[in-house]
Amino acid sequence: MLILYYATNTCSLAAHIALEDAGADYELRRIDFTRTEQQSPEYLKVNSKARVPAMVTPRGILTETPAMLAFIAQSFPDAALAPLNDVFAFAELQSFNSYLCSTLHVAHAHRMRGYRWAYEASSFADMQRKVPESVSACYDLIETRMLKGPWVMGDNYTIADPYLFTLAQWLEDDGVKPERIPRVIEHRNRVAERPSVKRAIAAESAV
Amino acid sequence: MLILYYATNTCSLAAHIALEDAGADYELRRIDFTRTEQQSPEYLKVNSKARVPAMVTPRGILTETPAMLAFIAQSFPDAALAPLNDVFAFAELQSFNSYLCSTLHVAHAHRMRGYRWAYEASSFADMQRKVPESVSACYDLIETRMLKGPWVMGDNYTIADPYLFTLAQWLEDDGVKPERIPRVIEHRNRVAERPSVKRAIAAESAV
Repeated sequence: MLILYYATNTCSLAAHIALEDAGADYELRRIDFTRTEQQSPEYLKVNSKARVPAMVTPRGILTETPAMLAFIAQSFPDAALAPLNDVFAFAELQSFNSYLCSTLHVAHAHRMRGYRWAYEASSFADMQRKVPESVSACYDLIETRMLKGPWVMGDNYTIADPYLFTLAQWLEDDGVKPERIPRVIEHRNRVAERPSVKRAIAAESAV
Repeated sequence: MLILYYATNTCSLAAHIALEDAGADYELRRIDFTRTEQQSPEYLKVNSKARVPAMVTPRGILTETPAMLAFIAQSFPDAALAPLNDVFAFAELQSFNSYLCSTLHVAHAHRMRGYRWAYEASSFADMQRKVPESVSACYDLIETRMLKGPWVMGDNYTIADPYLFTLAQWLEDDGVKPERIPRVIEHRNRVAERPSVKRAIAAESAV
């Protein structure tokens, strides 16, 4: 049994969808960011980083989306969520996910979480002004160089797809013009149609 | 044959050390950041992200340090650079590396590369002021919660060790007080003593 700690409208949706894709036996535990539950003493015992997602496994607790996604793919090989027997293809997939966490998600985070990296309100406002440019640059690269289509890695749906789908929920709010990235938008629509994705979103909306 | 594109004083040292640890057959190609060679048309054909490291393999080009490190570990299993037959332990290792790329390295980058996320000189200066605090917070977490010792993942040296070692080269310049993180410093010294690390550093210094 796995337990996924998540918060609505965060990147934890990616791992949540992957658990649905995998047919995993898991429980959801919601962390309410509006009540800053991620900083409660109870949650800090689960994840001292005060972030989501965190996943309790029989062996211990995992954090960091790319690691959790690869863990889900390797733990449920029958779901074929990653090219587990092809070292290069697996590395390409991991490279994509690493870019999402360390570049795209980070660029996005400067819109609402500038306090992580600066002190002044004027800096936060400046960071917010740059987000449309920096996030658009990431999506341009994904659109033209990285997204193979129809799925991120080509013919097969993998753990990269729910991750891109999850971050792509925020692109309009980040000021990215959807018309400049038609393949990313088409991919987002394609992923949205999957039953596993609908189930995950319904479960997070139901609380 | 592998080709590693690297630049001095960057995170590409981690993959370079791992290639030495693996006993890989590889060639080094230096990208000179002082001449902005990372933005040359030739290099952009290798890596359109205009960053290092990039690694040319017989199957294609890989970027993103965590993905490259896992690729090296999986491609050279005899070197035992990752717990390849233990899905949970491998995920823990990947979680550590993901934290380094998406949180520690990102916090550090606000000292010199604020232009990625803001426009104004005043914002860059503000970001620089925050670096000692934000980077120290990362190292506090690594010191107290993440670094198992003697190696990052415990008894066995893995691909997490050259990665932490590489980023830890910069901590004094980031304003982190070494005396607050004795275990990280001890780890850095331990890694520095390895012949593979000495060879990689000597090769980068020799150019």
